[in-house]
Amino acid sequence: MTLTVVSSSKHFGGKLTKYSHPSTATQCDMVFNVFLPKIAAEDNVKVPVLYCLGGLTSTEDNFAIKAGAAMRASQYGLALVFPDTSPRNVGFPEAGVDQEVGYSAGFYLNATQTPWDKNFKMYDYIAKELPSLVAANLPIGGHGAMSIFLKNQESYKSVSAFAPILHPSVSHWGLHAFPKYLGEDRSTWKEYDTIELIKHYASEGKLRKDVTFLIDQGTGDVFYKDRLNTMDLVHAVKDLGIEDQFVVRHQDGYDHGYFFISTFVNDHIDHHAKYLGLSLN
Amino acid sequence: MTLTVVSSSKHFGGKLTKYSHPSTATQCDMVFNVFLPKIAAEDNVKVPVLYCLGGLTSTEDNFAIKAGAAMRASQYGLALVFPDTSPRNVGFPEAGVDQEVGYSAGFYLNATQTPWDKNFKMYDYIAKELPSLVAANLPIGGHGAMSIFLKNQESYKSVSAFAPILHPSVSHWGLHAFPKYLGEDRSTWKEYDTIELIKHYASEGKLRKDVTFLIDQGTGDVFYKDRLNTMDLVHAVKDLGIEDQFVVRHQDGYDHGYFFISTFVNDHIDHHAKYLGLSLN
Repeated sequence: MTLTVVSSSKHFGGKLTKYSHPSTATQCDMVFNVFLPKIAAEDNVKVPVLYCLGGLTSTEDNFAIKAGAAMRASQYGLALVFPDTSPRNVGFPEAGVDQEVGYSAGFYLNATQTPWDKNFKMYDYIAKELPSLVAANLPIGGHGAMSIFLKNQESYKSVSAFAPILHPSVSHWGLHAFPKYLGEDRSTWKEYDTIELIKHYASEGKLRKDVTFLIDQGTGDVFYKDRLNTMDLVHAVKDLGIEDQFVVRHQDGYDHGYFFISTFVNDHIDHHAKYLGLSLN
Repeated sequence: MTLTVVSSSKHFGGKLTKYSHPSTATQCDMVFNVFLPKIAAEDNVKVPVLYCLGGLTSTEDNFAIKAGAAMRASQYGLALVFPDTSPRNVGFPEAGVDQEVGYSAGFYLNATQTPWDKNFKMYDYIAKELPSLVAANLPIGGHGAMSIFLKNQESYKSVSAFAPILHPSVSHWGLHAFPKYLGEDRSTWKEYDTIELIKHYASEGKLRKDVTFLIDQGTGDVFYKDRLNTMDLVHAVKDLGIEDQFVVRHQDGYDHGYFFISTFVNDHIDHHAKYLGLSLN
């Protein structure tokens, strides 16, 4: 057991536990929260798991504390994993100065540029190390963010997102962070760009047909138009003729925060439960 | 309009808005959050309101962000007001050094001792000024913590509490804070002690018979035994023969945090809705 319990609270009949562990991928200690429903927490019954990935400025706590997802998950008997969004305390000052590159801004990519390439391997951490660690240590049977799902379609059964960054190669956030993490060669950026990945997998016939992508986007979100590029996705999937697989809901007047997320989190849990074959208790 | 909007987000069809305003009672600027359900936020229809008072170390944000109360409140068409727990930035350093006296530790009392007596008038603020301000400025028709309810039984229709401090006159927290706020004369403490107030009103026949007190208490709460004095209440109401009016639920294994509160918040909203004559939409 390489997991250390930081804290643990009973929650909706189950347990919300924060763990820390040394990470091979990021070469530092990482933390994550896990919600285990009662049958898993008390009786050690293996249950399916939903990975809930935070966005820019988030830690492992934001979604766990503010989204209100555990009620519905407890009703389905579904575990929730809330990973941190970046390495922490990596020892070089650049990691702590920019809200869009460094701590809380890992972009779930494997950095290739110094000084980021030693620790900022969040893709490997989220897609490989953490699921293995969770499966080996917790009563969770199997093992979403958009780009990780796309590159690992055999590992996940469903995906959904709230106000995701869909086209970072052309948005301010990507143009600011990707040169630092990945260098100036833009061909390397496509690997972490959801729209570019959809185009790539769809054109090669490698996009799973049995999965619907659920995306909620608030129209009152200040990042809606020029950072998240939601309409670029809508147009791209239409051009590819795969718009039936994408449910993009524009939620009138909602912003980018947790009051938006908690309002619609039950719909997302229902969406994943359908693919996992779960029903409400 | 003396209210200034600090922030506002759409939430469960309604609006969660943070306001600031100068306070006469506390002689400083105060902040509070309000959740208005859709009919109040959009159509200005007057709705009933539930006052959600935070505990030690809380601000106006804790209950609003972490408890998950707005979902059920939106279904009932019920407004929620989340006040701050103390004055802020009052200009004397003692207010910021002790977690149990000063900022975030107002105890909802009117302090009588210097330097606290100028600003720490939280009883007047919560029981008088804030309800008037809310009623005058927001589409809220009427106007709960235990002691405020008891002294204002004509102003509120129902009361409930999560892990309340029930007997501060004999618990560590009261023994630490009350001498500073109220002085050494213990007779002045009874006015802010729930159990003493219950004894007083019940013995005078002035405890409303048509109200049930709902209290949830986690048995895994580290403050359960010697700070909250839950069993003192259970014994006191039994001695008074009024135990039928007190539903004290010991929730097995739950602690003092928001994971406990969010688990049972729907039960509390249901409890208040019953007294307010509301039904789920």
